[in-house]
Amino acid sequence: MKTVAFIGLGNMGGPMAANLLKAGFAVKVFDLVPAAIQILVEQGATASATAIEAAENVDFVVTMLPAGKHVKSLYLGNAEQKGLLDIVSKDTLLIDSSTIDAESAKLVAHAAAEKGIEFIDAPVSGGTAGAAAGTLTFICGASDSGFKKAQAVLNAMGANIFHAGAAGAGQVAKICNNMLLAVLMAGTSEALQLGRDHGLDPKVLSDIMKVSSGGNWTLDKYNPCPHVMENVPSSNDYQGGFMVDLMVKDLGLSQEAALLSNSSTPMGALARSLYVNHARQGNGRRDFSSIFDIFVKANKE
Amino acid sequence: MKTVAFIGLGNMGGPMAANLLKAGFAVKVFDLVPAAIQILVEQGATASATAIEAAENVDFVVTMLPAGKHVKSLYLGNAEQKGLLDIVSKDTLLIDSSTIDAESAKLVAHAAAEKGIEFIDAPVSGGTAGAAAGTLTFICGASDSGFKKAQAVLNAMGANIFHAGAAGAGQVAKICNNMLLAVLMAGTSEALQLGRDHGLDPKVLSDIMKVSSGGNWTLDKYNPCPHVMENVPSSNDYQGGFMVDLMVKDLGLSQEAALLSNSSTPMGALARSLYVNHARQGNGRRDFSSIFDIFVKANKE
Amino acid sequence: MKTVAFIGLGNMGGPMAANLLKAGFAVKVFDLVPAAIQILVEQGATASATAIEAAENVDFVVTMLPAGKHVKSLYLGNAEQKGLLDIVSKDTLLIDSSTIDAESAKLVAHAAAEKGIEFIDAPVSGGTAGAAAGTLTFICGASDSGFKKAQAVLNAMGANIFHAGAAGAGQVAKICNNMLLAVLMAGTSEALQLGRDHGLDPKVLSDIMKVSSGGNWTLDKYNPCPHVMENVPSSNDYQGGFMVDLMVKDLGLSQEAALLSNSSTPMGALARSLYVNHARQGNGRRDFSSIFDIFVKANKE
Amino acid sequence: MKTVAFIGLGNMGGPMAANLLKAGFAVKVFDLVPAAIQILVEQGATASATAIEAAENVDFVVTMLPAGKHVKSLYLGNAEQKGLLDIVSKDTLLIDSSTIDAESAKLVAHAAAEKGIEFIDAPVSGGTAGAAAGTLTFICGASDSGFKKAQAVLNAMGANIFHAGAAGAGQVAKICNNMLLAVLMAGTSEALQLGRDHGLDPKVLSDIMKVSSGGNWTLDKYNPCPHVMENVPSSNDYQGGFMVDLMVKDLGLSQEAALLSNSSTPMGALARSLYVNHARQGNGRRDFSSIFDIFVKANKE
Repeated sequence: MKTVAFIGLGNMGGPMAANLLKAGFAVKVFDLVPAAIQILVEQGATASATAIEAAENVDFVVTMLPAGKHVKSLYLGNAEQKGLLDIVSKDTLLIDSSTIDAESAKLVAHAAAEKGIEFIDAPVSGGTAGAAAGTLTFICGASDSGFKKAQAVLNAMGANIFHAGAAGAGQVAKICNNMLLAVLMAGTSEALQLGRDHGLDPKVLSDIMKVSSGGNWTLDKYNPCPHVMENVPSSNDYQGGFMVDLMVKDLGLSQEAALLSNSSTPMGALARSLYVNHARQGNGRRDFSSIFDIFVKANKE
Repeated sequence: MKTVAFIGLGNMGGPMAANLLKAGFAVKVFDLVPAAIQILVEQGATASATAIEAAENVDFVVTMLPAGKHVKSLYLGNAEQKGLLDIVSKDTLLIDSSTIDAESAKLVAHAAAEKGIEFIDAPVSGGTAGAAAGTLTFICGASDSGFKKAQAVLNAMGANIFHAGAAGAGQVAKICNNMLLAVLMAGTSEALQLGRDHGLDPKVLSDIMKVSSGGNWTLDKYNPCPHVMENVPSSNDYQGGFMVDLMVKDLGLSQEAALLSNSSTPMGALARSLYVNHARQGNGRRDFSSIFDIFVKANKE
Repeated sequence: MKTVAFIGLGNMGGPMAANLLKAGFAVKVFDLVPAAIQILVEQGATASATAIEAAENVDFVVTMLPAGKHVKSLYLGNAEQKGLLDIVSKDTLLIDSSTIDAESAKLVAHAAAEKGIEFIDAPVSGGTAGAAAGTLTFICGASDSGFKKAQAVLNAMGANIFHAGAAGAGQVAKICNNMLLAVLMAGTSEALQLGRDHGLDPKVLSDIMKVSSGGNWTLDKYNPCPHVMENVPSSNDYQGGFMVDLMVKDLGLSQEAALLSNSSTPMGALARSLYVNHARQGNGRRDFSSIFDIFVKANKE
Repeated sequence: MKTVAFIGLGNMGGPMAANLLKAGFAVKVFDLVPAAIQILVEQGATASATAIEAAENVDFVVTMLPAGKHVKSLYLGNAEQKGLLDIVSKDTLLIDSSTIDAESAKLVAHAAAEKGIEFIDAPVSGGTAGAAAGTLTFICGASDSGFKKAQAVLNAMGANIFHAGAAGAGQVAKICNNMLLAVLMAGTSEALQLGRDHGLDPKVLSDIMKVSSGGNWTLDKYNPCPHVMENVPSSNDYQGGFMVDLMVKDLGLSQEAALLSNSSTPMGALARSLYVNHARQGNGRRDFSSIFDIFVKANKE
């Protein structure tokens, strides 16, 4: 039986760790919130007092953390505190599923490589529903051997496992995809509202564009106009789903990447501005398809 | 045998009229360019000396013209010249497949209705290849009865026939779709180039995004990055396909519509600016996926 | 004593006509709202029952109307109704101070010229305060002789009289200026808020930028951040001044012009999108510097 | 006689150090390029073998370096190498005139403060001409006492000395200003070209807007349209002035700042995209007013 240390048991990490237990892994868990640990212990996990303790003598480490600074701090440590790289064995495969900037991912991967340890970036998409159902998509930055070795663990948590390239490539591919998603969502919203403003039924317009050259994921799975599709956030007052604040975070990562490479992403940059303004008006915790609202004529005045 | 008058025999209209002949219609043709008429006559059409002459005593009229002013002038006539509405019988169904502004389409439809004649807007997508193959998409603004009556003719030229709503709705749906297409193309281009700037293989990145939430028509059918897909314009130096100048025209129609309804389309407006700048640098006759080029680092200096 | 017919006595036209009276012109007035006529009559004007009646036997006609369609209808007339061009003498100088699209202005100017009458476009800036104080700016599209002849009238209402070029040029210059103004306002707002978000005092930042290369009219006269300047709308809850809805109208005219000439104005197009969204959220009647609000973090949630 | 160490003797730093010599300071200089040192020695400076050597026993240190990483490395040092903070006395005032990110500036200022040393950020504007003439603008982030103490040195190199706020505020104000400048330049360019596309004389249009609500620094000092003003880069094939690559750098700093504070700067972000695309087409070394070119119709095809 293979052993996994799982660190970071939030809305995503908790169900992911649970799926590892269901798949038969022995799982040692750690989180800063004791209650989060307790939930996993009740499902068969072993509690650890620290991340370091969890990561000792395991086959795999999986981390699910909020941002690059947490990942760097945990793996690299600092003057007062050892990092995971200081204590794991060379046989342990380190898998970070956080969505962070590619530079941080590369930095940790290189530091690991210098010690003969393999660290791969494997950010996910699919949301909390996908985490619970074990149908997440993993986009990996890894060597061929690291990618192969990670399969057993990732398959227990996800349905699609992609190999984007070497260290950091998983993060780059994830943010390229999510930047494009924001563009699709904003662009589809304004097209649907333009049609509505000219008297078209958004359901009819959606049906036409979906099978035409305007076809895209948001029309297939996540229509932003209320009551065009059922069982999506737009038909539930934009509750649930993927929060505006998280899209702002991902768009921020995309712009950080564009700055580093002196790239231009005019559509993505504009989408970020629209999403930041939307968040600043108090919509940060609504679903990201609520960007549709900025195009609709409010019934004020 | 039903009779069709076909007016406007350009790159699109010519092959469309030819498909009507193949489907067994008697076709009377007119174009300002005699050579264009001659090509159709050789395929079995009857030449007409004027548009008016062509439209007399036919079951259907199909027009394929450059812009709203041509459509209005042809159907409504003016002080010196009769319009089609002055001479066709009430049994003739008028089908305009030009891509024009919705206001002009509505104006002609209403003028026709006042005389008891039915005029429907039925703009197409699918390009010259679709016109030749008879696989065009028609997006119709029409009454239910008009839409039903048009089926026989439209099926002879296209594969998908949509009913978007009442008069003008076909034009609105078409430009909403094409505006969204421009957004998809620009957004996908910048996402692919951002990935490339960070060392990713655009083929791998395309494969990942295509089945993820960034999935859209351009990744499926028309990848803008050279040599990711074969048999698309990007792999043929952006020759063929749908010209930048035509996308500029359609984006112009979308912005005209947005002005009329006081709607905002920030992504579409930005896409128009990028396409206009691209056209002004001398790229008007290249395929519209060549917008990819503006994101690439030129090997100048 | 020279005679002027003044047609359109709204918030701008009323005070402008009053200034003509003060300057010693005999003024015949017409408006669709009887109360507006009455106010001018009390100041010494002569009431007319129709616009046609007002314009008979005068040296000058000045019109101040909402949009191009009103200007065209008044001057050109239609099947049922004569237009001003049908009744004024060749010695009458026609001055339209409405802000309308340049095409309509040119159309009327050319129709007038065919009858040997001179029509000039002379849109204004300076707002209701400038109209009352007689300090408006007029931007004229006119022949040299027409421009010269208009001086007497325009000087009675304004402080700066510019000659932008031939017929229509006044309208073009006006909308270029107002589009740029919207860009300055939005750009200055976001720069000030970025500074605030990093702890800077907006007053200090304004003082620095005002004398540096970021210097522009909004920092000099119309700071959008509350309480940086007194006596501007931003320090009065964005009441008074130039309404968002009017800026949306002018930005619409600029985009209409850009469509006609196949020009790209990415900054102006983006400013229009931001202003339309702002208007749609219920801010149409607030001052246009309230665009600052979209960048500020709301105290909701 | 007060002593200054000047580190970084490039196009800006060289003439700045020369002005300190002219003002009577004893100047110790260091640069990685020996020839740059030699030029200053010929004007009376003392050569130093290292930056550390230059900074020993001086009243002031002035640094002029390319980016935040160089500033951090020089002042903070690293495992192998001491930093300036390790060797300067508490009486030495450290002045960094580089344009860098505010976070780096704050980091060094705080590290200095912990040792009882004062470090102020004092980025400049005014270009190489201003550096030579001693008419630079300095925008300072400093305590009141530090700002006061720096006057003697800054006055020897500049004409306007601003106090933007505490540590880092100089950098923030500088990038807010330069972001706004890019917006002014792009917005003015597109407004002028829109006018030209409608037949207006850009000189006349510039004269009108300059004294109207579109008035801004670029119309006063730096018109981007060729031959409207003489003695500006646009009338000299966009040679000289402030390079596109430097504007791209400053716009990058503004976007980095916007990411840190979760601010939205839609106009600045769009300006950055336009400038990056322009640089990528091979215009990086032309003056930044050459952005005008992207709006002009090329005489290709």
